[in-house]
Amino acid sequence: MSATRYTYLGPAGTFTEAALRKLPEAATRELVPMVTVSAALDAVRAGEAAAALVPIENSVEGGITTTLDELIAGEPLMIYREVLLPITFALLVRPGTQLADIKTVTAHPAAQTQVRNWLAANLPDAVWESSASNADGARLVQEGRYDAAFAGEFAAATYGLEPLVTEIHDAANAQTRFVLVGRPARPAAPTGADKTSVVIWQRDDHPGALLELLQEFAVRGVNLVLLQSRPTGEGIGSYCFAIDAEGHVSDPRVGEALMGLKRICLKVRFLGSYPQADVSPQDVRALRPGTSDGDFAEASDWLTRCRDGRF
Amino acid sequence: MSATRYTYLGPAGTFTEAALRKLPEAATRELVPMVTVSAALDAVRAGEAAAALVPIENSVEGGITTTLDELIAGEPLMIYREVLLPITFALLVRPGTQLADIKTVTAHPAAQTQVRNWLAANLPDAVWESSASNADGARLVQEGRYDAAFAGEFAAATYGLEPLVTEIHDAANAQTRFVLVGRPARPAAPTGADKTSVVIWQRDDHPGALLELLQEFAVRGVNLVLLQSRPTGEGIGSYCFAIDAEGHVSDPRVGEALMGLKRICLKVRFLGSYPQADVSPQDVRALRPGTSDGDFAEASDWLTRCRDGRF
Amino acid sequence: MSATRYTYLGPAGTFTEAALRKLPEAATRELVPMVTVSAALDAVRAGEAAAALVPIENSVEGGITTTLDELIAGEPLMIYREVLLPITFALLVRPGTQLADIKTVTAHPAAQTQVRNWLAANLPDAVWESSASNADGARLVQEGRYDAAFAGEFAAATYGLEPLVTEIHDAANAQTRFVLVGRPARPAAPTGADKTSVVIWQRDDHPGALLELLQEFAVRGVNLVLLQSRPTGEGIGSYCFAIDAEGHVSDPRVGEALMGLKRICLKVRFLGSYPQADVSPQDVRALRPGTSDGDFAEASDWLTRCRDGRF
Amino acid sequence: MSATRYTYLGPAGTFTEAALRKLPEAATRELVPMVTVSAALDAVRAGEAAAALVPIENSVEGGITTTLDELIAGEPLMIYREVLLPITFALLVRPGTQLADIKTVTAHPAAQTQVRNWLAANLPDAVWESSASNADGARLVQEGRYDAAFAGEFAAATYGLEPLVTEIHDAANAQTRFVLVGRPARPAAPTGADKTSVVIWQRDDHPGALLELLQEFAVRGVNLVLLQSRPTGEGIGSYCFAIDAEGHVSDPRVGEALMGLKRICLKVRFLGSYPQADVSPQDVRALRPGTSDGDFAEASDWLTRCRDGRF
Repeated sequence: MSATRYTYLGPAGTFTEAALRKLPEAATRELVPMVTVSAALDAVRAGEAAAALVPIENSVEGGITTTLDELIAGEPLMIYREVLLPITFALLVRPGTQLADIKTVTAHPAAQTQVRNWLAANLPDAVWESSASNADGARLVQEGRYDAAFAGEFAAATYGLEPLVTEIHDAANAQTRFVLVGRPARPAAPTGADKTSVVIWQRDDHPGALLELLQEFAVRGVNLVLLQSRPTGEGIGSYCFAIDAEGHVSDPRVGEALMGLKRICLKVRFLGSYPQADVSPQDVRALRPGTSDGDFAEASDWLTRCRDGRF
Repeated sequence: MSATRYTYLGPAGTFTEAALRKLPEAATRELVPMVTVSAALDAVRAGEAAAALVPIENSVEGGITTTLDELIAGEPLMIYREVLLPITFALLVRPGTQLADIKTVTAHPAAQTQVRNWLAANLPDAVWESSASNADGARLVQEGRYDAAFAGEFAAATYGLEPLVTEIHDAANAQTRFVLVGRPARPAAPTGADKTSVVIWQRDDHPGALLELLQEFAVRGVNLVLLQSRPTGEGIGSYCFAIDAEGHVSDPRVGEALMGLKRICLKVRFLGSYPQADVSPQDVRALRPGTSDGDFAEASDWLTRCRDGRF
Repeated sequence: MSATRYTYLGPAGTFTEAALRKLPEAATRELVPMVTVSAALDAVRAGEAAAALVPIENSVEGGITTTLDELIAGEPLMIYREVLLPITFALLVRPGTQLADIKTVTAHPAAQTQVRNWLAANLPDAVWESSASNADGARLVQEGRYDAAFAGEFAAATYGLEPLVTEIHDAANAQTRFVLVGRPARPAAPTGADKTSVVIWQRDDHPGALLELLQEFAVRGVNLVLLQSRPTGEGIGSYCFAIDAEGHVSDPRVGEALMGLKRICLKVRFLGSYPQADVSPQDVRALRPGTSDGDFAEASDWLTRCRDGRF
Repeated sequence: MSATRYTYLGPAGTFTEAALRKLPEAATRELVPMVTVSAALDAVRAGEAAAALVPIENSVEGGITTTLDELIAGEPLMIYREVLLPITFALLVRPGTQLADIKTVTAHPAAQTQVRNWLAANLPDAVWESSASNADGARLVQEGRYDAAFAGEFAAATYGLEPLVTEIHDAANAQTRFVLVGRPARPAAPTGADKTSVVIWQRDDHPGALLELLQEFAVRGVNLVLLQSRPTGEGIGSYCFAIDAEGHVSDPRVGEALMGLKRICLKVRFLGSYPQADVSPQDVRALRPGTSDGDFAEASDWLTRCRDGRF
């Protein structure tokens, strides 16, 4: 039954699954691993799943372009939630293996950039072999093909392995951001610490065009938290921009900024408004004076009076 | 009966009366000259006149500060019309006077700056004496006190004088702008070539504050035609700004810009939306792409769909 | 001898003379009152005086347009100093006159707006007669033509009068700003609290043109303290802007901003850099990060290294 | 001898080699394929090669993050040239193979996105196997492991294969941009159609910070052709920006913009000025009025005169 099915970028035992399990609702959903981001999202588009959890950005590697490009093109999808997960690795081994026994290690290539220093310091002679995913690497250790795998500690149980070393990460604060994506529907009500995602295509690339786009946000006091260019496919030099802004589509300042973009852009794709994973309402940055909901309401009343000649 | 009474800056026979008579409705109004701009406007505020015509700006002398300051402070008033009048002088004399007979000339001091060159070339030996108004100067010629007066040609008949020379003006294109001012009421519908006047007081004078104000207009593609600073009376360095912008308060782009000002300013005083005297709708500057009424309506529909999740 | 002669807007006994005497150097100069601002400045242009002190701005009345227009047009002049003078009036009478004796009062018309409330409260029945200047009013009291004159307290001695009441002013903080104007020469060295004055003519009045001008200042962190529009004489709607900015022409941030204006404007007239009368160096607003002289020097060194490939 | 050695992203027969051979100087250099972008650049840093040619951007896939990250971090490098190569594939087979014989095809995974439609239409039943590079795929066809490989037509000869079909590309205009990277040195003189690359780190991420950075370019009329965010590694939400701007570091407008960035940014890394591959000097976009070299020189002369009081 699709309403209770969530897909995610698999296989089981990856960081994506761990991120998905941070959502309270995950406990009551059927969680289905998919081989690719595209497959996870296609299941949503086809109505076979209610939502999909996919990685969208990593603090070391940057934007996950497959996910961005899937959201940018094709049948519209909407982001309902974001999840942040610290990325820290465990060295998983078959029970009984000691550090000195390890001759070969494996993991997804992306993991290599995050454990390289640890490896050089602790297992300088171990041979690295890439695997298709971190979970897959764990499976290959289980099967005896390699001696150890870097993966999330949570993957140990799935594959009958033991975490020999935990909390391995070259970059402190390494995080991956995941998004829960569904078909378009009315966004959840604002929480007071929300984020709004859009993709914009410029009408033309005259000098200063990007500046004009950013001014639509700035003049309404809306802060940007991410601006990422992606090729439009029209050739080198032609880009669209994926933008994350603070605030909710139902906030008047965000709504007015989005309408401003809509007017001057060739195309705007709304990708959703959802709670910020890392910010609670009391920690939200102070609004610029004159941009609160009350300020907008008061100005709107005043304009009505001006238009009616009552002042 | 106040509803049919218009006051104006007198006395009779001044350029202000000539400007007032350019309004078709003037033919059916009781036109009452007043001694000062303040008196003309006070009659409106007191309900003794429906409207007042007063000069607000001169292309040679600049803003008429008395008028500006009256509109900026006190009981709110509203501009309903503007009238442009080319300022060109006639040399008025008693019938029979020849150029060679003229030993003394008179007019309001403001006129002197506009006939100085002509005087030097044509009556180098004539003595100048200032009078309280150009019309008053004409009266003094009628009474025989001076030989000639510079005034509007239309003043000749009133004072039994003859225009000896006409079309006198040192600066080509000298014009005065007059405004018809009444108590606040719903502005007339847009004509397609309108102007909106406001006065704004900044919340604080942080660096870049003026820039922010202008951006509220620019980001909505609203052009400014006048920006004039006036002291607030709080001391040197404290100003408010009288601004004329293209467009009508009922245009969405103008309305949104005004709301933006209202939010970030300490105070905004709306002074009216009225037809531009010198521009017909077909000569209006092209709107910046994305700022037409239709663009605003389309963006608003789109925002509604985003907020509802229907896209 | 012109090098020691300073002209000023006379007659003797006006606020302008009082402002001039605040300059230490005034003690060793020949101070010559002139009938008009134009006459005072023409004497400088003709080499008959080293400098002229003239009023340029009043916190109640606004810019002194005669002075502005003289600086904007004609042979270039330069501002070397500014002087701020609180404007407060004394009621000057012939020795022995009591308040109850006063039937007629006089002063320059501009004074009337600043003593109106005091007059209504204290001498409600006195008749007002305008005089050509406040000093002239005092002279007419001396001659017995009027009973009392509003003027600066300092004018009493000159005309053998007594200050019956002092510190009269309707608006608290009323001030007039005067400038000492001379022929162009190298400006005095920066004091750390300086002001730079320019006049700019826009190349065209395309929408947003004024915004672009202001951005030349803003992007270099240069604060504006005054922006005043004046008609160019080309007709209604054509203005130039007199601008006062914080900082000295020799500051790199000011220099770069001025060059920016020079490039995009039709014309820029430099009017001088001089100490701010009301700000001492320790009270100067903090510079925006990245705009100090040191920041400019460091960035310039870095650019040189980039251009040379040494980094 | 390192001065004549150029490394490139290998193996031989890839598009990178084809791009490198478009440079006239390649004919007289020793061209050494390297396994990774990092290895190619490390050889330059170590002084073992004079320069390295690496892909930096693809019109379908976007920025090549490995290359960007290598240029952003580590020992400074500089871009000396860019090369654009249309990406179009040939289907390479062993001599004699017909379309009907092909059961298995191979290529680098990136190629798959660009031939997918062609494959579905022409070889719907062929099985896809990824290879480490397109050249490697060709080698595996030569060895008989697969029936056909997608690769550049130029790779056929190297591996003794024949192009059975050419000009295969799902996206018209697909291009890859390559850069020739060396150690820092004085950039080549401007050609009149140049590009300047920098990486900037913001001092803080206050609202509008990105806008301020872009204004440093806009106010000097410098157009941006690319703006790409990359994570700084400090955690989600912390980015630096790789920027390509039109013009040469020796152009005064570009130099002034770069100094502006240097002052307000935490860090700026200059990556070089080099000829635009796709634009000839006569096709360069017209400069914004007031930003030519002559305008800068004239403004600089004027400022000198202002500072000296000679005007």
